[in-house]
Amino acid sequence: MTEITQLALRAREASRALARTSTTVRNGALVAMAAALLAHADRILAANAVDMEAARVAGTPAPLLDRLMLDEGRIAGIASAVEALAREVDPIGQVVSGHRMPNGIQLRQVRVPLGVVAMIYEARPNVTADAAALCVKTGNAAVLRGGSLAIHSCLAISDVLAEAATSAGLPEHAIQSITSTDRAAADELMSLHGLIDVLIPRGGAGLIRNCVENSRVPVIETGVGNCHIYVHSAADAEMALRIVMNAKCQRPGVCNAAESLLVDEAVCDTHLPAILRALHEAGVELHGDERTRALGVGDVIPATEQDWGTEYLDLKMSVKVVAGLDEAIAHINTYGTQHSEAIVTGDYAAAERFLDEIDAAAVYVNASTRFTDGGEFGLGAEIGISTQKLHARGPMGLAALTSTKYLAMGDGQVRP
Amino acid sequence: MTEITQLALRAREASRALARTSTTVRNGALVAMAAALLAHADRILAANAVDMEAARVAGTPAPLLDRLMLDEGRIAGIASAVEALAREVDPIGQVVSGHRMPNGIQLRQVRVPLGVVAMIYEARPNVTADAAALCVKTGNAAVLRGGSLAIHSCLAISDVLAEAATSAGLPEHAIQSITSTDRAAADELMSLHGLIDVLIPRGGAGLIRNCVENSRVPVIETGVGNCHIYVHSAADAEMALRIVMNAKCQRPGVCNAAESLLVDEAVCDTHLPAILRALHEAGVELHGDERTRALGVGDVIPATEQDWGTEYLDLKMSVKVVAGLDEAIAHINTYGTQHSEAIVTGDYAAAERFLDEIDAAAVYVNASTRFTDGGEFGLGAEIGISTQKLHARGPMGLAALTSTKYLAMGDGQVRP
Repeated sequence: MTEITQLALRAREASRALARTSTTVRNGALVAMAAALLAHADRILAANAVDMEAARVAGTPAPLLDRLMLDEGRIAGIASAVEALAREVDPIGQVVSGHRMPNGIQLRQVRVPLGVVAMIYEARPNVTADAAALCVKTGNAAVLRGGSLAIHSCLAISDVLAEAATSAGLPEHAIQSITSTDRAAADELMSLHGLIDVLIPRGGAGLIRNCVENSRVPVIETGVGNCHIYVHSAADAEMALRIVMNAKCQRPGVCNAAESLLVDEAVCDTHLPAILRALHEAGVELHGDERTRALGVGDVIPATEQDWGTEYLDLKMSVKVVAGLDEAIAHINTYGTQHSEAIVTGDYAAAERFLDEIDAAAVYVNASTRFTDGGEFGLGAEIGISTQKLHARGPMGLAALTSTKYLAMGDGQVRP
Repeated sequence: MTEITQLALRAREASRALARTSTTVRNGALVAMAAALLAHADRILAANAVDMEAARVAGTPAPLLDRLMLDEGRIAGIASAVEALAREVDPIGQVVSGHRMPNGIQLRQVRVPLGVVAMIYEARPNVTADAAALCVKTGNAAVLRGGSLAIHSCLAISDVLAEAATSAGLPEHAIQSITSTDRAAADELMSLHGLIDVLIPRGGAGLIRNCVENSRVPVIETGVGNCHIYVHSAADAEMALRIVMNAKCQRPGVCNAAESLLVDEAVCDTHLPAILRALHEAGVELHGDERTRALGVGDVIPATEQDWGTEYLDLKMSVKVVAGLDEAIAHINTYGTQHSEAIVTGDYAAAERFLDEIDAAAVYVNASTRFTDGGEFGLGAEIGISTQKLHARGPMGLAALTSTKYLAMGDGQVRP
C-alpha cells in the first residue's frame, strides 16, 4: 500500500471519530489552532523563508512572490480568520427536514460531515490554514496538498495546526498534508474513490481543469469567472458607467470582476463613449469589436475570438456592440463561465428575460457582479464559488462541506 | 465532430429552450407522452418482439427475459406512471432562500433545471419512459442510452415520447436516445464534460462502478444496498423477528432489503434460533459464522469474508454473532454500502449511538430497512436512492434533478 493510500485510510478513520465530536470541542480546536499559529510564527516564518529563497532563485515573478510571502502581520490575519470560524453557526446536526410518516415512524434528515475532504491548491500558504479550519469546523478530515512553490510554508502551517487540533481533543490525523509535490502524488489522490469523499481544487483554471478531467473522486469546481456587464438599450447611462467601472476596476484580479462589456447598438453612441473614456483613464486595456473601435475613443485593440472567452483577471476588458437582448443572452451563454452576469436596464421585460435565460450561478439586474461572495450573500465563511450545477452553485457556505442522512425512529414498523 | 457530440450539442441547445418552458407546457407534454405510449403500443410491442426473439436465441435467462418483456398491460402501467408525474409539484422556479441585502439588493435563490441529464441503463425498457418523463418534468434535456438487449424497445419508446413531446410544444431534441450500444459510445458520452451536466447510471453494481471510474461527467451513484439488521442485547425478540423477516423476505430483490443479520451474543441463544427457523421456513439460504452454526438450527453454510460484503438480492442472508454495539457499528461501517441500516433495541443510549455513528443514507431504530424509498419518505416521484454524499443522499425526489441560481435585483448598487 502506498503512502498516500495509507494517509487516506488514516483520514477515513479520523473522519469517523471527528463525526462524533461536539460543536464545542471543534470550536475549541479552532481557537487552539489560531493560538498555535501565533505561538509558532517563528517556525512558520523560517519555513516560508526557505520557500521565498528558492522562489527568488527560480526567478518567480513579483506578484507570485507577494502571494507566497508571510510576515507576522499576515500570520496574525490567518490566525484571526481561523478563530472567526469558531464563532460561525455549526451546520452539523442541523435538522434539514422531517415529519412523522403515516405509520408512525419519526423521520428527520440531519446534516452530517462529508467525511474526508481533499484540497489541492497552489502557492498561497494561507489556503492551508483556511482549508484545515473549514474542515475542522464541519467535522471533516482534511487531506491537503499544497503546491511546490509554497510546500515548506504549507507543511509548517499544517504541522502546527494538526498538533494544536490533537491537543484540543480532535482525533489524530484529522489534518494531514501530502509532503510530495510530484504530479504522481496528486494523480494518486484523485484516484482514491471511496476513501476521499470530495476534492476541492483551489487555484487557477489549469489546476481546476486537471482535477475535473482526471479525478475519480467527485470534484467541486470553483472560481473561473468570465463575467459580463450588458448595457441594455433602456439602461441609465450614469448607472451603466458606475456599474461597469466597479465591476471591472474595484478589484480586477478576482473571479467576480467583469471581463467583458456588451452594449446595445441603440445606445452605443450615447452611453459607450463615456464608459470607454473612464476605462481608459482607469488604465484598462480595451479589446473591442469593429463597432466599438469605430467610435474612435482612445486606443482599442481589435478583439479576437479568444478575447470573448478570456478571464483576464487584470485591467483588461473586451467590448462588443450587440444588436439587442437576444444577441447579448446568446453571447453570454456561449462565452460565459456560468459565474456572475449583469444587465443594466430600466425595462421590466428585459430584466425578467435576462434573469430567466442567463445560465449562471448569479444573475444581476442593475448591480455590480462584484457582490457574488459568501460574505455579501450572508453565508458566513465561504469555501469558494462553485461554477458547477451539482451539490452547490454560487458562493458556498459551510453547508457545502456537509451531506445529510435520514434518521428513522420506529417502534417495530415493517412494510406491508 | 462525432455523432454523439452532435447529439449532446443538440441536447444543450434544447435544454436552453426547455428551461424557458412553463410548468403547464411540461405537464401537458407528460400527458401527451402517456397518451402516445398507448396510441403507439403496437409499434413498441413490435420492437419489443425483436428484442425478445434475439434474447431467446442468445439463451438469456428467464428472469432477464421477464424484465425485458412488454405487453399491453405493462405499457399501460408505464403510461400511467408518466401521466402521474404531471400531477407532481414542479420543483422548477421554487424559491429556496432569499433576503434583502443590507445595500438593498433583493436576493433570491431559485430552483432551475440541471441542463442536460444523461442516463445509462440496462435491459428494462420501462426505464426509457421513466427517465425521459423525469427529465421533462424537471425541464432537463434527456440523453438516454439503453442496453443492447433492450435496444429496439428503448428506441421505439424514445421515438414515440420524443414525437409526442415536440407536438405538445417542447423543443426538438428534448428527448434523445443513443442508437449505438457499443461500449465506445458510452465511453464517449462519459467524456463530454461541459456538454452533459450529470450522468445517472441505473442498473447493476458493475454498470455503476464503470461510470464512477470512467466518467468525466459528474455521476450520481445509486442503488447498491448491503443492508444490515442488528439485533441488540436489549431487543424485543418478537419485534426483532418481525423486522428481520420483513427486511429480508418482503421483496428480496430490491436494494433496501436486508442482506446481513448481526445478533448480540448476549441474546443469541434466546432471540436467534426463532429467527433462523423462520428464515429457513421462508426458504432463505443462510451463511453464518461459527457461533451461528453452533446453534444447530437447520443448515447454515459457513460464511466467508466475501459474504459480509455481498448484496445477494435474493433469498440469502449472512448471519454473525457480535460482542456488542461497538463490534456491530464497526462491522456495518466496514462492510455496508451506506444505504440503509437498522438496529432493534429497547435501550435509549444504544439507539442514539447507532443513529449517530452509522454512516449511511438512512439509519433506523426498530423499523425495517424496506422503508427507504421516495414514496415512503414523502418525496413523490423517486429518481433512485443515492449512496453517495455529494448533491443528494438517500431517496432522491425531483429536486435531485435540479440546481439553483441566485437572482439579484438592484437599483444601481456597486461594491464599496
